[in-house]
Amino acid sequence: MAKLWGGRFSAETDALMKQLNDSIRFDIRLWEADIAGSTAYARALARAGLITRREAGQLVKGLRAIRAEFAAGRFVVQPDDEDIHTAVERRLKEIVGDVAGKLHTGRSRNDQVATDMRLFCRDAMRTLRSDLCAVQSALLNQARAHVRTLMPGYTHVQRAQPITFAQWCLAYFWMLARDVDRFQDCARRTNVMPLGAGALAGNPFGIDRATLAQELGFVAVSQNSLDAVSDRDFVAELLFDCALLGVHLSRLAEDLILYSSAEFGFITFSDAYATGSSLMPQKKNPDAMELVRGKAGRLIGNLTAVLTMLKGLPMSYNKDMQEDKEPLFDSLDTLSLTLPVLAGALNTLCVNAERMRAALDPAMLATDVAEYLVRRGLPFREAHHLAGRAVALAESKGLRLDQLSEQEWRNLSEHFAADIQSVFDFARSVDLRDVVGGVSPRAVRAQLRQAAAWLRNVLRRSS
Amino acid sequence: MAKLWGGRFSAETDALMKQLNDSIRFDIRLWEADIAGSTAYARALARAGLITRREAGQLVKGLRAIRAEFAAGRFVVQPDDEDIHTAVERRLKEIVGDVAGKLHTGRSRNDQVATDMRLFCRDAMRTLRSDLCAVQSALLNQARAHVRTLMPGYTHVQRAQPITFAQWCLAYFWMLARDVDRFQDCARRTNVMPLGAGALAGNPFGIDRATLAQELGFVAVSQNSLDAVSDRDFVAELLFDCALLGVHLSRLAEDLILYSSAEFGFITFSDAYATGSSLMPQKKNPDAMELVRGKAGRLIGNLTAVLTMLKGLPMSYNKDMQEDKEPLFDSLDTLSLTLPVLAGALNTLCVNAERMRAALDPAMLATDVAEYLVRRGLPFREAHHLAGRAVALAESKGLRLDQLSEQEWRNLSEHFAADIQSVFDFARSVDLRDVVGGVSPRAVRAQLRQAAAWLRNVLRRSS
Amino acid sequence: MAKLWGGRFSAETDALMKQLNDSIRFDIRLWEADIAGSTAYARALARAGLITRREAGQLVKGLRAIRAEFAAGRFVVQPDDEDIHTAVERRLKEIVGDVAGKLHTGRSRNDQVATDMRLFCRDAMRTLRSDLCAVQSALLNQARAHVRTLMPGYTHVQRAQPITFAQWCLAYFWMLARDVDRFQDCARRTNVMPLGAGALAGNPFGIDRATLAQELGFVAVSQNSLDAVSDRDFVAELLFDCALLGVHLSRLAEDLILYSSAEFGFITFSDAYATGSSLMPQKKNPDAMELVRGKAGRLIGNLTAVLTMLKGLPMSYNKDMQEDKEPLFDSLDTLSLTLPVLAGALNTLCVNAERMRAALDPAMLATDVAEYLVRRGLPFREAHHLAGRAVALAESKGLRLDQLSEQEWRNLSEHFAADIQSVFDFARSVDLRDVVGGVSPRAVRAQLRQAAAWLRNVLRRSS
Amino acid sequence: MAKLWGGRFSAETDALMKQLNDSIRFDIRLWEADIAGSTAYARALARAGLITRREAGQLVKGLRAIRAEFAAGRFVVQPDDEDIHTAVERRLKEIVGDVAGKLHTGRSRNDQVATDMRLFCRDAMRTLRSDLCAVQSALLNQARAHVRTLMPGYTHVQRAQPITFAQWCLAYFWMLARDVDRFQDCARRTNVMPLGAGALAGNPFGIDRATLAQELGFVAVSQNSLDAVSDRDFVAELLFDCALLGVHLSRLAEDLILYSSAEFGFITFSDAYATGSSLMPQKKNPDAMELVRGKAGRLIGNLTAVLTMLKGLPMSYNKDMQEDKEPLFDSLDTLSLTLPVLAGALNTLCVNAERMRAALDPAMLATDVAEYLVRRGLPFREAHHLAGRAVALAESKGLRLDQLSEQEWRNLSEHFAADIQSVFDFARSVDLRDVVGGVSPRAVRAQLRQAAAWLRNVLRRSS
Repeated sequence: MAKLWGGRFSAETDALMKQLNDSIRFDIRLWEADIAGSTAYARALARAGLITRREAGQLVKGLRAIRAEFAAGRFVVQPDDEDIHTAVERRLKEIVGDVAGKLHTGRSRNDQVATDMRLFCRDAMRTLRSDLCAVQSALLNQARAHVRTLMPGYTHVQRAQPITFAQWCLAYFWMLARDVDRFQDCARRTNVMPLGAGALAGNPFGIDRATLAQELGFVAVSQNSLDAVSDRDFVAELLFDCALLGVHLSRLAEDLILYSSAEFGFITFSDAYATGSSLMPQKKNPDAMELVRGKAGRLIGNLTAVLTMLKGLPMSYNKDMQEDKEPLFDSLDTLSLTLPVLAGALNTLCVNAERMRAALDPAMLATDVAEYLVRRGLPFREAHHLAGRAVALAESKGLRLDQLSEQEWRNLSEHFAADIQSVFDFARSVDLRDVVGGVSPRAVRAQLRQAAAWLRNVLRRSS
Repeated sequence: MAKLWGGRFSAETDALMKQLNDSIRFDIRLWEADIAGSTAYARALARAGLITRREAGQLVKGLRAIRAEFAAGRFVVQPDDEDIHTAVERRLKEIVGDVAGKLHTGRSRNDQVATDMRLFCRDAMRTLRSDLCAVQSALLNQARAHVRTLMPGYTHVQRAQPITFAQWCLAYFWMLARDVDRFQDCARRTNVMPLGAGALAGNPFGIDRATLAQELGFVAVSQNSLDAVSDRDFVAELLFDCALLGVHLSRLAEDLILYSSAEFGFITFSDAYATGSSLMPQKKNPDAMELVRGKAGRLIGNLTAVLTMLKGLPMSYNKDMQEDKEPLFDSLDTLSLTLPVLAGALNTLCVNAERMRAALDPAMLATDVAEYLVRRGLPFREAHHLAGRAVALAESKGLRLDQLSEQEWRNLSEHFAADIQSVFDFARSVDLRDVVGGVSPRAVRAQLRQAAAWLRNVLRRSS
Repeated sequence: MAKLWGGRFSAETDALMKQLNDSIRFDIRLWEADIAGSTAYARALARAGLITRREAGQLVKGLRAIRAEFAAGRFVVQPDDEDIHTAVERRLKEIVGDVAGKLHTGRSRNDQVATDMRLFCRDAMRTLRSDLCAVQSALLNQARAHVRTLMPGYTHVQRAQPITFAQWCLAYFWMLARDVDRFQDCARRTNVMPLGAGALAGNPFGIDRATLAQELGFVAVSQNSLDAVSDRDFVAELLFDCALLGVHLSRLAEDLILYSSAEFGFITFSDAYATGSSLMPQKKNPDAMELVRGKAGRLIGNLTAVLTMLKGLPMSYNKDMQEDKEPLFDSLDTLSLTLPVLAGALNTLCVNAERMRAALDPAMLATDVAEYLVRRGLPFREAHHLAGRAVALAESKGLRLDQLSEQEWRNLSEHFAADIQSVFDFARSVDLRDVVGGVSPRAVRAQLRQAAAWLRNVLRRSS
Repeated sequence: MAKLWGGRFSAETDALMKQLNDSIRFDIRLWEADIAGSTAYARALARAGLITRREAGQLVKGLRAIRAEFAAGRFVVQPDDEDIHTAVERRLKEIVGDVAGKLHTGRSRNDQVATDMRLFCRDAMRTLRSDLCAVQSALLNQARAHVRTLMPGYTHVQRAQPITFAQWCLAYFWMLARDVDRFQDCARRTNVMPLGAGALAGNPFGIDRATLAQELGFVAVSQNSLDAVSDRDFVAELLFDCALLGVHLSRLAEDLILYSSAEFGFITFSDAYATGSSLMPQKKNPDAMELVRGKAGRLIGNLTAVLTMLKGLPMSYNKDMQEDKEPLFDSLDTLSLTLPVLAGALNTLCVNAERMRAALDPAMLATDVAEYLVRRGLPFREAHHLAGRAVALAESKGLRLDQLSEQEWRNLSEHFAADIQSVFDFARSVDLRDVVGGVSPRAVRAQLRQAAAWLRNVLRRSS
């Protein structure tokens, strides 16, 4: 079959040019969306009286056959198939004959590819959401098991205050919850149908776009034909959502890499999620987490690629936009591999509660010392200063903070009494932080209930 | 006054280190948010019984005095003011004395700065929305005046089909409408209060976070103290929204630059929005639009900066996060300057309707020729091919497409009749694209009503 | 064969984890480098007395057989082949038996992959340089043919001063010359051998690194084992060089897209480098150039990906670094496709000299008018102002600048005499700019000689 | 004074447009370069006979006076000063009168600003190089003191093999050496003079560009006027060099943050380079290092900004290019603050050699165990496997690797003899890695000599 657009051309396309131009090697992934869009469009043509019901039936049947070929892995790409759209139309002609030439009536690849991409992204976001929820479930399960597992909380990678492992797990739970929320917003904006915009000026055959949209599950139709064919906001937004998710995963990975080091020793990965060294026999490396961390790079890179590609493009469609697909597919593939691995690693990691406990240091209760003074009426700023002097004193004497004598405390301030020792209890410190979102077991249990409800709600909506 | 945290330190901070560390030179912009947050926090301390009502009154009054100093431009930064938080606390102590030292009870700069930033961003998004609506109004006004102003529509910067200037204006209207929509989603996610998370583990003094949130206009409180102090998603998301908006503006600018060139000549900028050359006396350059286009670069760069900074950061707060502010402020400042300039340029530009009309070429109706055949029953694919051959024929004879003789049309296909000439009417071509979102005057008027309603709705919500 | 590193592990690797971890699907491209490195290393082991000459012979012969398999496309990857290194070692064992187990003596995949990557990049830069020179040759040929082809020179996409098409071509020639220069610097820094650094601490078996380097064509050896295995500067630098080259190509493409529009009409692409529309039969789109322009996005994205991935990585090797390969391969593949297409498009494009000439407008000689006054002794600033007033006067009267009467000129300034008309000669204006690098035919011919010499010099060095 | 270019304009510039357009607020930093360029240009005008010697003298004297005003901080910007070029010209006119209007003869702001920027960058790179060398000196000094200070070497943040602190320091030394090398290449490409290119077509007054270049210290003149005014490669390249340097610094910072944590405890920062917490009295945070790490984000963002801004710009100068300055200045300022702080922190940090020693674990000698077997003739692959089994055995028995009994060793393989115990000596392991670049004290001392020579060489060239 000749090209879709060959009528006005005399010379052949250069071979390398063809290779540069053809997108079938990557846009073949849109086959399901493309066939769905064409099926609905065939029916719309019949409704508008542009083809007969019988012709529509032939087209739909032919498309169904092609879908079956793709599903079975039997579809064969031909050298002249520029892209998924021409491949499907070419095959359709082979199956149903010349009536295939009626399918493109009033439709352009410009509105067709925009429709396919939106259908594809809509599905991809559903998968992403489900993969994300699996990671969140793993975090939730670990949290439930460790409401009272004490560990150092860090700021600046310096021991700051005692927290629990549950609180750490839930911090990531909520981070990912925001990602799910963002994907939902993006899905809403994506779910708008461009079909009917034609090449740029709108369909001239009175196609009923509302019915067409309904059939394809779109919640709205685009309001402007120029915008419809040149809008790739949904791709950019999805790529940003993926990039920010990637940043979250890189933080989680960084924590787990540190926690699995000999120096921290807080967790041990299952052998199923670690690898060894070709040279050093003793090594057990957290490769999975390093790859998760590293992949934030490509997720940010893909976002940069598409934003930069779009920058300065004149209205309306420009071929540059074909460059939206590979970064998008790469980001989606990256996440659909890393999220399940992460869920698996989280579900199977072993928490070394005693190593966590051993890393707690009485100096981490210096804030509690200050609070002790506050409770005795001192302004916090003064209390903080006195607690800091206590830390310096203990350090200069080579003592732990809880080893200062009563006299030494009193020398620092008359407000210190014998009961200052009661402050040096990590569990008590945690219990005190009982505000909403705080680290106390009671607050964490409330948080767990919130998290579980949130997850149920998302899973219910997805099903 | 000494540093807030000096108690355990013996040596002085290095001077360059201090310069690197201090953020007052840029975070001073948070003064209003910081004072609002502290005022509400003082009241919360009183409600929790940590300070007396009288003390709260003193603090609130002192803060009000500081606010007045800032508003009047009378606040003087001191060399030891590390950041806006210490500057305000230092000044508060000067005004109200030692009771100032009670304000920080149970609060850390970690939850304080996160609260300030969210308050600041919330306000900034309101301004952005209003600036965006002004640009949209300008586009709407131009669209209303040009529902029947024909011009070439382009794909690939090649003349494609006739459109109207109204349709072009409205394409950008809807692009910006999506930006407004995204800012609204971001604002919703931003409007969550971290205050009460303390340094990382939660407030130990039973602060009532719900009431505090209400007082500050937050719609929710953060659920996890670690997440609360280490979350900068709202900054990243706002920067993305700004970057994508910047990409939209760069496209609008590119079009206007091309349209104001001698070769297109479709529009003329007001002298108020153009500049000249220091060497070439005849030049009138669209500098405003070039800067708008160019600034997409920094908006994307700022997003990259923050995503990269966040990549791989361990839980919870790390000082790297101080690097969130300058990119954010820069993106906001960039837009709050370019959006009004753009609105002004759009409101004052002169549309050269006759130049637009003159750029229409009968070959742009080749699609209408194909549609003519479709209406006579030919499959579109065949019709497209025949129209393409007609274009090639006309080109080879050095004729315009509408100059082919009846015989030449018939030689191409028996389906061409004398009435093929009726196709060569640009207004008719536009009228035919009468689908929702199409370029016909009727469809565009419906679109204008939608756009106006959308704008009214947004403006009502903002007020 | 079992994993290279399985000794200390008890559980199996998770299937998805394996998929995430394995790099064979993309690093198989390193096969030639890997075999070259291993061949040289086998010889080095023999020189150091760690294996016998006979064993070395067996290894080298086995590696030669594997190379032949790859070259013939007969190498079969096995499911357990993690990466190209394990694949080659596995196959080597199948061919030469247990002696294969000696090849990795003192070597780690850490220094091995760094060596492979450097060998690969070194070759890739040679190809890039040659592809670049082909584009430069095309530019040079067009320049030679158009030393006197006048056209408008633009600043701000506004007609500025007359130039020649040769000068336009040569501007891009020199841009690309800087790219070649940068690739050469990068190649020099890449050509340093890490082999012998082991996993991170250095080879313990007294390998002679200098001889090894010589054999592999490296000009130096790395000075520090930690740096050797964790340095990916050469990848980042190569990606930057590709990104900046991509920016240059995007500018060239933008010009050609504009120049091939109906509004400019300066050039016509060969049908071999243009495509049509599926809907609009008359369209001939500069898709090749749009893709070239769009691909700047992914080239910048790939650079961002690798810089972001490297950010904050601790010493020394981390698995994140495996993420250096796909962006690198993508950038190289992108350029090795776009450069030849660009060369082809440049070689075959048709220059419409009369359209270029017709676009010259006497107002573009306003600078020459000012210079006329300067030659009569007026300060340039005053002359510029008077010429500007002449432009404004002509515009207000609806005249071209050269249509002002002698009286009108005199009214503007007594310094204008009848000979002002001689200024309105585009060729004269061009001839006057006769400085080095100027647009005069004489200066351009000198420039052409410089360019040709530069190109000869590069091609000689490459061969 | 009126605008430089006002002749053909009738309406006033809009106030916000002016604010958007004016660049004086940031390009005022180019004052020294601008005055140097103008001084040389005045002399060139005299040499070309366009102004008299006396006039040149007046101009030069006036410029000298302006330079003095800037140097003394007495220069006052006026509201109509668009940019540094107009500011200087305006002031020059105030000082020397109408002859100031002759300075711009044949010169455009296009070639002027390109010249200023190149002069500025040239100087900036000199400063950068010197700041870098100070960091390298600090690393060298620490390395000299710690040639025998054993510590764990890490891959994947897992203990890998024993190394020395000297080797760690030198790894960063060489990383930075490549940065210096790159800056030198960039400086060479920057040091090419665009002056004489005019607005885009070349100087029409026969200016002697070679002499002008010599006077300004340029080593070459640009070969093409279009390229000269539109080339910002040197900015992009400098920004890349800064970004990659920033990535290096982020890695160094990450290591130091980890090493200063309680868990590692390898180093202690001087109080002069650490800060405290507003809430937690015990905290001593490595803020300097976190900021260094975080600033990699903005350095990469600035690069992205400029590359994206340049993407797709048509020939030749476009106002978008004004956006090159702020990212450039920001990257330079960032480095000129962080590099000295880093040098200070490195010079004053305290190495806790006993903590480093204590972190060495006999399992880190598993590679030495394998090498022991290799020295007894086993293929490395088999030796690696046996050593791995020994690690697993020891782990399962809860023993350190050096606590396995002779019998247990023998059970693993008959090749283990009593002398296997001699392997468990960290210093011996380090001594064995005696290859060029290896970690042995002998090799490190050779490396130190190389490094010192390199540094001397750079410092000599700079002076």
